[in-house]
Amino acid sequence: MESAIPDHLRSARTRHRRVPDDYAPPYPSFVARHKPAVVRVVMAYFGVQTRGEPSEAAEQALAWIVAAFGQNGGPTHWDRARYIDEAGFTNVVTVAYWDDRARFDRWFPAAREGWTGERRNGAGTFIEVLHPSVEGYETLFSSLERPEGVAVLADGMSGEIQEHAYWGGMRDRIPKSQTSEMAPSGNITAVRDGARIRVIPSDNVCLIRSGQDWGDTEASERKMYLEDVEPVLREGMDFLRDDGRSIGCYANRYMTVVAPDGTRTEKSYGMSWWKSLAALERWAESHPTHVRIFGAAMKYLSTLGPAAKLRLYHEVTVARADEAFFEYLDCHPRTGMLNAVPADNT
Amino acid sequence: MESAIPDHLRSARTRHRRVPDDYAPPYPSFVARHKPAVVRVVMAYFGVQTRGEPSEAAEQALAWIVAAFGQNGGPTHWDRARYIDEAGFTNVVTVAYWDDRARFDRWFPAAREGWTGERRNGAGTFIEVLHPSVEGYETLFSSLERPEGVAVLADGMSGEIQEHAYWGGMRDRIPKSQTSEMAPSGNITAVRDGARIRVIPSDNVCLIRSGQDWGDTEASERKMYLEDVEPVLREGMDFLRDDGRSIGCYANRYMTVVAPDGTRTEKSYGMSWWKSLAALERWAESHPTHVRIFGAAMKYLSTLGPAAKLRLYHEVTVARADEAFFEYLDCHPRTGMLNAVPADNT
Repeated sequence: MESAIPDHLRSARTRHRRVPDDYAPPYPSFVARHKPAVVRVVMAYFGVQTRGEPSEAAEQALAWIVAAFGQNGGPTHWDRARYIDEAGFTNVVTVAYWDDRARFDRWFPAAREGWTGERRNGAGTFIEVLHPSVEGYETLFSSLERPEGVAVLADGMSGEIQEHAYWGGMRDRIPKSQTSEMAPSGNITAVRDGARIRVIPSDNVCLIRSGQDWGDTEASERKMYLEDVEPVLREGMDFLRDDGRSIGCYANRYMTVVAPDGTRTEKSYGMSWWKSLAALERWAESHPTHVRIFGAAMKYLSTLGPAAKLRLYHEVTVARADEAFFEYLDCHPRTGMLNAVPADNT
Repeated sequence: MESAIPDHLRSARTRHRRVPDDYAPPYPSFVARHKPAVVRVVMAYFGVQTRGEPSEAAEQALAWIVAAFGQNGGPTHWDRARYIDEAGFTNVVTVAYWDDRARFDRWFPAAREGWTGERRNGAGTFIEVLHPSVEGYETLFSSLERPEGVAVLADGMSGEIQEHAYWGGMRDRIPKSQTSEMAPSGNITAVRDGARIRVIPSDNVCLIRSGQDWGDTEASERKMYLEDVEPVLREGMDFLRDDGRSIGCYANRYMTVVAPDGTRTEKSYGMSWWKSLAALERWAESHPTHVRIFGAAMKYLSTLGPAAKLRLYHEVTVARADEAFFEYLDCHPRTGMLNAVPADNT
């Protein structure tokens, strides 16, 4: 059993973990381990938004960003997902990961100009980037051997970690929690730059990407996931999408991962933007749909253990305002962090 | 909104609460407020145990203890409940409360000799007492005007308190949590004294009394409690009774409150002994039955609010070994804290 916080990120605590030192989780979980030389990562979401099926302009944008990824300084890993949002628009979101901020900074300006710098014949585009220090985020995996998201960049996976399977584990896995409450501060403002809108977030804005992969499940396990778990998950995701703002969730996208050719896979993930880690914690602990998901997962993973074929993972980041970049072009006003801007701050 | 911890028990924190200062609970709850002059309370459980219905000897014991309560120095409040335990014995438990330790200390020796000092013709008897300082326990009520348990002794109820409706609220309401993890320490031992067995607990043993009163519910609310909530609650209580030891629950009694004449009321409570507050927290947060109860309660109370006729309350105490007294006479070996004694410590 090891701590989710690697040795080189341990610091003298001013804040305690939520569990005693002899806490033993009821099932195994793992975290991604970067090489100690990695001090910062970049998570960059490039979205394209159209009414109905992606237009030719949208398809061109999707091909363009993949080509851009292939340029010098491009990401180490990317994937793509799609969904229909609360306003009825189809969104295709391509997320790319770097573990070298300088490399991203050299690559990004041209990509930004190509993505949100020119209008794409009716297709909206957006960029949502966090570049947290490694003290500012955590990952969690229910099984080894198939990393997703930022974990693909990692040096490998941990052994079984201690800080999971209890409320508060998410916070306890983030190295900053050793000394910081990670409370939100400051205002959210929008800055117009021609047709583009940039959003400047408050400090300690929080992002979660939480995914599931049911591709390996068979028979009863597949049936259980699709009939018992997925509908409850969807209900929670719909709540966040439609009513999240009242509890500090600015935007939620529950998306299906697609292959490079656009076909659907048996993977999905939800990504959501939150006012604070605390707001995410409160939802997770108290919303009936998520409480049911958690209860089902506890039972499921405690029973099946490593035999479970369903794979679950997430990554959660808390970022300073200057570790974030949000830009929207021709998107509807409830898109992403646009939905977070108070009416008098635009 | 006020803190569950009254002003005169606030201290300079070395440990943080689990929620930010701007946390707003989704429904109201209240705590008992003693006069500041109260520094310690006493909770004394007197049990009588028989195979089958209470024998004449048991009935005599029950009448005797009520008479003893009427003596000088007797309790301010008491109530009585019964249940059939895991070994098939009927247990009638009479619990009495004091808010003056010295008064209890003068009264108790004679009561103890009368209760566990002489055999009662086949009826087992036991005494389980905690006398915590007011820093060592907390209460919680879903509504005003009908205090139960130790709260009957209080000066009154608080206004709406902040620290509830999230995992960790229980701990945050206990004043000691401001500076202490309340971790368990030391061993549990049994001391034989003729036919009596005393149990010396480890430090920071934890007691919860958690009750419900459905006497005022009508029609659909009553049906919901009896058909949807109570069976799930019972399942959780049965788990703790039968399998609790593996997770640090030494004993659990899910009891029906009875009137002085022995007839059943529409109130019940569970009381359980735990190795630590942390063990109780882990069960509450992760056992499917309790997670379901919590989810149901969140939904129920958030929806009905003060209109709910179901009344819920609890009191949770963490006590040092020298704030506890356990004594058993002619009880089966799984009774109460006897069940906590390792085989080599008797």
